[in-house]
Amino acid sequence: MGSCTPAKEAQVSGKKARNIIFMVGDGMGLSQISAAFYANSQKLALQQFPHVGFHKTPSSNDLITDSAAGATAFSCGVKTYNGAIGLTADSTACTTILEMARDEGFATGLIATSTIVHATPAAFAAHQPIRVFHDQIAADLAGSGVDLLIGGGKRYFDRREADDRNLLEEMRKNGYFIATYLDFELADLVPSPASKFAYFAADKHPLTKEAGREYLPAAVRTGAAFLRSRSKKGFFLLVEGSQIDWGGHANDGNLIVNETLDFDDAVRIALNFARRDGETLVIVTADHESGGLALARSGSPQELEHQFTTNGHTAAMVPVFAFGPSAELFDGIYENTEIFYKMQLALGLSSSPAPEP
Amino acid sequence: MGSCTPAKEAQVSGKKARNIIFMVGDGMGLSQISAAFYANSQKLALQQFPHVGFHKTPSSNDLITDSAAGATAFSCGVKTYNGAIGLTADSTACTTILEMARDEGFATGLIATSTIVHATPAAFAAHQPIRVFHDQIAADLAGSGVDLLIGGGKRYFDRREADDRNLLEEMRKNGYFIATYLDFELADLVPSPASKFAYFAADKHPLTKEAGREYLPAAVRTGAAFLRSRSKKGFFLLVEGSQIDWGGHANDGNLIVNETLDFDDAVRIALNFARRDGETLVIVTADHESGGLALARSGSPQELEHQFTTNGHTAAMVPVFAFGPSAELFDGIYENTEIFYKMQLALGLSSSPAPEP
Repeated sequence: MGSCTPAKEAQVSGKKARNIIFMVGDGMGLSQISAAFYANSQKLALQQFPHVGFHKTPSSNDLITDSAAGATAFSCGVKTYNGAIGLTADSTACTTILEMARDEGFATGLIATSTIVHATPAAFAAHQPIRVFHDQIAADLAGSGVDLLIGGGKRYFDRREADDRNLLEEMRKNGYFIATYLDFELADLVPSPASKFAYFAADKHPLTKEAGREYLPAAVRTGAAFLRSRSKKGFFLLVEGSQIDWGGHANDGNLIVNETLDFDDAVRIALNFARRDGETLVIVTADHESGGLALARSGSPQELEHQFTTNGHTAAMVPVFAFGPSAELFDGIYENTEIFYKMQLALGLSSSPAPEP
Repeated sequence: MGSCTPAKEAQVSGKKARNIIFMVGDGMGLSQISAAFYANSQKLALQQFPHVGFHKTPSSNDLITDSAAGATAFSCGVKTYNGAIGLTADSTACTTILEMARDEGFATGLIATSTIVHATPAAFAAHQPIRVFHDQIAADLAGSGVDLLIGGGKRYFDRREADDRNLLEEMRKNGYFIATYLDFELADLVPSPASKFAYFAADKHPLTKEAGREYLPAAVRTGAAFLRSRSKKGFFLLVEGSQIDWGGHANDGNLIVNETLDFDDAVRIALNFARRDGETLVIVTADHESGGLALARSGSPQELEHQFTTNGHTAAMVPVFAFGPSAELFDGIYENTEIFYKMQLALGLSSSPAPEP
């Protein structure tokens, strides 16, 4: 006979979170989650989340959001135009949840499996009118004061097209320890909390998981421990599983499954951290669905076929999963922008605009 | 600025429900819900639900369930083979949640927008090895003691192929007041709680909503009030929006939208009843997704196109929404069979098998 009570550990109504690990599977709609579930013997770390909701994805100018507007909805709580990085719909810079946390003494971090200047991480600590301004986004990130950066895109920092600045040198002078794929595997590093830390996993985009990328789960493990030791106040960490979306665009079901399972491994690391820590809110969601994926009948009743309708994004609502203090805020159906307010409330951040960095 | 607290009226942790209104949108996956949401100016009654979950849909013999196995998972808490009506995978009759409730003195009812002998309603009060045994299912329903039946399928009761029985006459002798579309609109009827009540809305399948079917919201309003007056103990009411699924099979986005919005109107009626009543748990879910529907870019950023991948069902997890006492049981991700146990727990039903009817 079945059991009826979902696990609700570490969940006390109204209790504030000290830390947030906010995890975005780019393009990870319900179909992508379901595809990974079936491909992995019907097991996912996502199944451990006691609280579930949906968010509504449209941007200010399009029923189908892109990742920039989707991430800015999360980071600033505003609906903006597709392509905008940390700007409102009228192109004004908006203060992000990461910047608010930083200005109140929390440690902050960004982890991605794309370049670190890609739309989703960028929207948390950069402010640019178009997502492809990668050099400008890199400069914003380098000057943002974020404690942790892990992702690809070294070239936008040290071999820039926009200017001759070497942002890696500038960051070293500003107190960062910087390591790259040329010298280190991330899993071999234990960054000292005495310095900020940046790790570049590729010159441009990191490999796919299938081609050998290994660092995402390690980045969450290392990053969460590092950030906890950087501030007694707490931390805000954004983690993106960037390449799930690329599987949707390519209508490549195996890429979707492999990237979603890698992301789910990172989710498991975050959940385990939160269980031990007891003060960490883990939120997992997507910005949008990509590909119009469906899991339809294949040859036998025990086989499924990945079918797609589009090379672009779709407009379906996407799931939200939450675990830890204040997780119950994420129940129900709400706008993507509400996730910003829920995170702000969970961390107890002031709602007044933060001062300029 | 946004508000951060989902409405959580009538929700006290651990409080038992007196009544359950269990609502199944057949084939109503997340894409169908999203399609109706966009078609209705981004408004749905479903958005009022404070608790959300997902269930996993596979049947005992197929990763892609049919409606019979899906409904039997809900009604009996067992994974069974596609086509089975109220039977376990080894073809043994299983006691349904409706039968358990009936045997403990609750009033019970079935409402559908298909024939009332169709798989979903059938699996709650009939036991047949194949879903197409419509005459046999009608005989099971007629003898089940269910207090309320509203749906199509009069022919399976009074012009049967299997035998010469007139089940309507038998039901009248057994204390039913019986009305049909030939004489009455459902909205004009106020059934007396002194008798059981059956209303046949069509000889076979009722019309689509677009073709003029009007009765589903009225059925929920009339049915819930009627059942409350039939028993002081409480009631269990199953409501199916049957034709959403048919829109998926036909790859007809407008049919999906119209049927989902009609079902959502019925959901609103149920929610309003539950709000006034304070003792009613409303659960809304689907058995599976149908059609592999995606909402993709159309001509303009403010238009969406319904795209499909299949004429059959798909394997995606499907959403669950809950409101009222014990609604928090439905948070998280779980097997479709768990819904049976959660409902049993919410009503405080004994877990021992009920005696034969």
